[in-house]
Amino acid sequence: MRLLTRLLAPKSVAHAHCDLPCGVYDPAQAMIEAQSVKAIAEKYAANEDPAFRARAILIKEQRSELVKHHLWVLWTDYFKPPHFEKYPQLHTLFNEATKLAGAGGTKGSVDVETADKLLAKIEEISKIFWETKQS
Amino acid sequence: MRLLTRLLAPKSVAHAHCDLPCGVYDPAQAMIEAQSVKAIAEKYAANEDPAFRARAILIKEQRSELVKHHLWVLWTDYFKPPHFEKYPQLHTLFNEATKLAGAGGTKGSVDVETADKLLAKIEEISKIFWETKQS
Amino acid sequence: MRLLTRLLAPKSVAHAHCDLPCGVYDPAQAMIEAQSVKAIAEKYAANEDPAFRARAILIKEQRSELVKHHLWVLWTDYFKPPHFEKYPQLHTLFNEATKLAGAGGTKGSVDVETADKLLAKIEEISKIFWETKQS
Amino acid sequence: MRLLTRLLAPKSVAHAHCDLPCGVYDPAQAMIEAQSVKAIAEKYAANEDPAFRARAILIKEQRSELVKHHLWVLWTDYFKPPHFEKYPQLHTLFNEATKLAGAGGTKGSVDVETADKLLAKIEEISKIFWETKQS
Amino acid sequence: MRLLTRLLAPKSVAHAHCDLPCGVYDPAQAMIEAQSVKAIAEKYAANEDPAFRARAILIKEQRSELVKHHLWVLWTDYFKPPHFEKYPQLHTLFNEATKLAGAGGTKGSVDVETADKLLAKIEEISKIFWETKQS
Amino acid sequence: MRLLTRLLAPKSVAHAHCDLPCGVYDPAQAMIEAQSVKAIAEKYAANEDPAFRARAILIKEQRSELVKHHLWVLWTDYFKPPHFEKYPQLHTLFNEATKLAGAGGTKGSVDVETADKLLAKIEEISKIFWETKQS
Ligand code: NI
Ligand code: NI
Ligand code: NI
Ligand code: NI
Ligand code: NI
Ligand code: NI
Repeated sequence: MRLLTRLLAPKSVAHAHCDLPCGVYDPAQAMIEAQSVKAIAEKYAANEDPAFRARAILIKEQRSELVKHHLWVLWTDYFKPPHFEKYPQLHTLFNEATKLAGAGGTKGSVDVETADKLLAKIEEISKIFWETKQS
Repeated sequence: MRLLTRLLAPKSVAHAHCDLPCGVYDPAQAMIEAQSVKAIAEKYAANEDPAFRARAILIKEQRSELVKHHLWVLWTDYFKPPHFEKYPQLHTLFNEATKLAGAGGTKGSVDVETADKLLAKIEEISKIFWETKQS
Repeated sequence: MRLLTRLLAPKSVAHAHCDLPCGVYDPAQAMIEAQSVKAIAEKYAANEDPAFRARAILIKEQRSELVKHHLWVLWTDYFKPPHFEKYPQLHTLFNEATKLAGAGGTKGSVDVETADKLLAKIEEISKIFWETKQS
Repeated sequence: MRLLTRLLAPKSVAHAHCDLPCGVYDPAQAMIEAQSVKAIAEKYAANEDPAFRARAILIKEQRSELVKHHLWVLWTDYFKPPHFEKYPQLHTLFNEATKLAGAGGTKGSVDVETADKLLAKIEEISKIFWETKQS
Repeated sequence: MRLLTRLLAPKSVAHAHCDLPCGVYDPAQAMIEAQSVKAIAEKYAANEDPAFRARAILIKEQRSELVKHHLWVLWTDYFKPPHFEKYPQLHTLFNEATKLAGAGGTKGSVDVETADKLLAKIEEISKIFWETKQS
Repeated sequence: MRLLTRLLAPKSVAHAHCDLPCGVYDPAQAMIEAQSVKAIAEKYAANEDPAFRARAILIKEQRSELVKHHLWVLWTDYFKPPHFEKYPQLHTLFNEATKLAGAGGTKGSVDVETADKLLAKIEEISKIFWETKQS
């Protein structure tokens, strides 16, 4: 990790989520879980011990569920009608991203590529999120 | 948020947490929840409606618990004996930080200053965390 | 409840939800929680005891969260691209319904009317759901 | 699904559960999870992929636990002493039904017949439940 | 606490619960939560601060739910038909005990006496439990 | 179990945990879960059925997580600075005990010896805990 990134990291990540609402939102929460899902898929491929694989699958299931949850929170709680007007692709993007963390995605698959597709979708959402924060 | 920060943000936050372990850790998870706790305390102070305040207290309780959980995970799962040797203050730091998210801290108090103290402790932890990642 | 309805009830409700997927889905799960939310709002209005009201608010928060969760599951896991093509209002419908169970809806309000609006939205979703099951 | 059933379904299912109490109860919640358990057992039998089977077992465990929980709620929160007097078999019925969703039942077995036995027990409970609602 | 009790304590408490089943059960789990419920009721009576009381109510709700859960587990998972034959009062005892931890008991009341009644019921269950372990 | 132990058991175990705080703490909660973990490891070794083993691994994961949680609660919520002064080994003891319930311990291993090591650490913590209660 480059020094610049490291210095900014602790300050750049304080955005999330609850439903008071506290007003703090951040796609980082979904991204972190998706990165975990990818790392699990890589470790699964590298380790044939059945006990390890059973653990990997159950943890991947939990982490994928967290990805879905964090994305749903952004879609329902953060994004408002004007955002959906400005970004008409947003509904489909969230629907596809959450599907990619479900049975047809990282829950049902142990392939690293599936996790990569999920990460790419979250990046797209994240990009839009930060654009809306700027304006 | 400055452009530089925004550009780095989506990329700089993918670090967390489960116990496969996936190897992904990030103090950002605790920090995000603590920022939420602070925002809740501010909204509590600004709104005297009893129904709102009851909600604020219950959500603050949940978010404080998440802070504790994310910090415990770092202390037990990420940090190893050599870290504790190099940073002898680390045990006390985590013990104080988690206490600051509990009954004697942000759970038991609605003061914004208590949340600020918690955030400062997490910053200290975060600084050490990133130092260990660099070496 | 009419006899006919009662007789059919036990047989007509087996539809839901997980992400194996088991293939069992049913808007009834969201509807049941929303009915609970409405009943809580009514009991809240009828009882000024602060301890009762604190309990009512925390349970309403949990039940509203369950409404959101059950709806998100339908939106992501049950509905597929052809459904969204045939029912272009579906994304907005789900987004509005889940918002109605959140901070701007039954979580943030103790009004019975808010719960009624949520129930009406779920009815709309339910109607479409059963149409798609028939075809 | 027959048309009549379908038409009634959305209206006939609003009954459940929390402990305010909201007064809304419905055996449908247990039934839905038990139907899911049965569907999982069927899919397990039809798919020998070890990763799929590991997922099926963990989801079956969760859904069986939900069956137990929903039944316990009915037994403790909905049914009152006069019901137990009128239906002296009720305690045994609930005890057997919850055991059928546990280690000696759908948690410990992947057989479809075990799930069928569980469903039959819930039907019996459901029948009594609706009788008590009518009187 | 007397010395004798203290010395035995760490060794005498290893009994619980899951549904593998591991075979480890212990009424202590329900008792611990019920003792917590009583302590919360006492602290509630002694502290009129509304923020403290809101916290007390929400934590009492959670701990009462845990009492119910631990008792349900004993009733369904530990006790078997021969126990119910030998102790015909067992069903009613568990039904009353779990009701005492619900809306009509420690969830719905802040009275210390209600918590005492709950504790007494759990003592009765505990006595029978240990008798069955001895035989 | 000896008669003396049995007689004392129901009375000697009421110590735990929440964060009101209720003031009720007890290492028994962690011990009970760790005993369960050991029993699971023994049953795993004795049963080669893959479906049973998948269940054993997922339940062992949950129970190990509960061990970690109960220990963290003691470390943060029960123990205070004077305790850490008097028992300078306490931080390391808790850190090692929670690691023994994680990926490098009972989560990642199915060996009975690993569970025994965890139990021994909890005994050490328990001994110190009861000393602090006496003074
Ligand atoms: Ni928030
Ligand atoms: Ni991880
Ligand atoms: Ni399902
Ligand atoms: Ni209810
Ligand atoms: Ni167990
Ligand atoms: Ni407590």
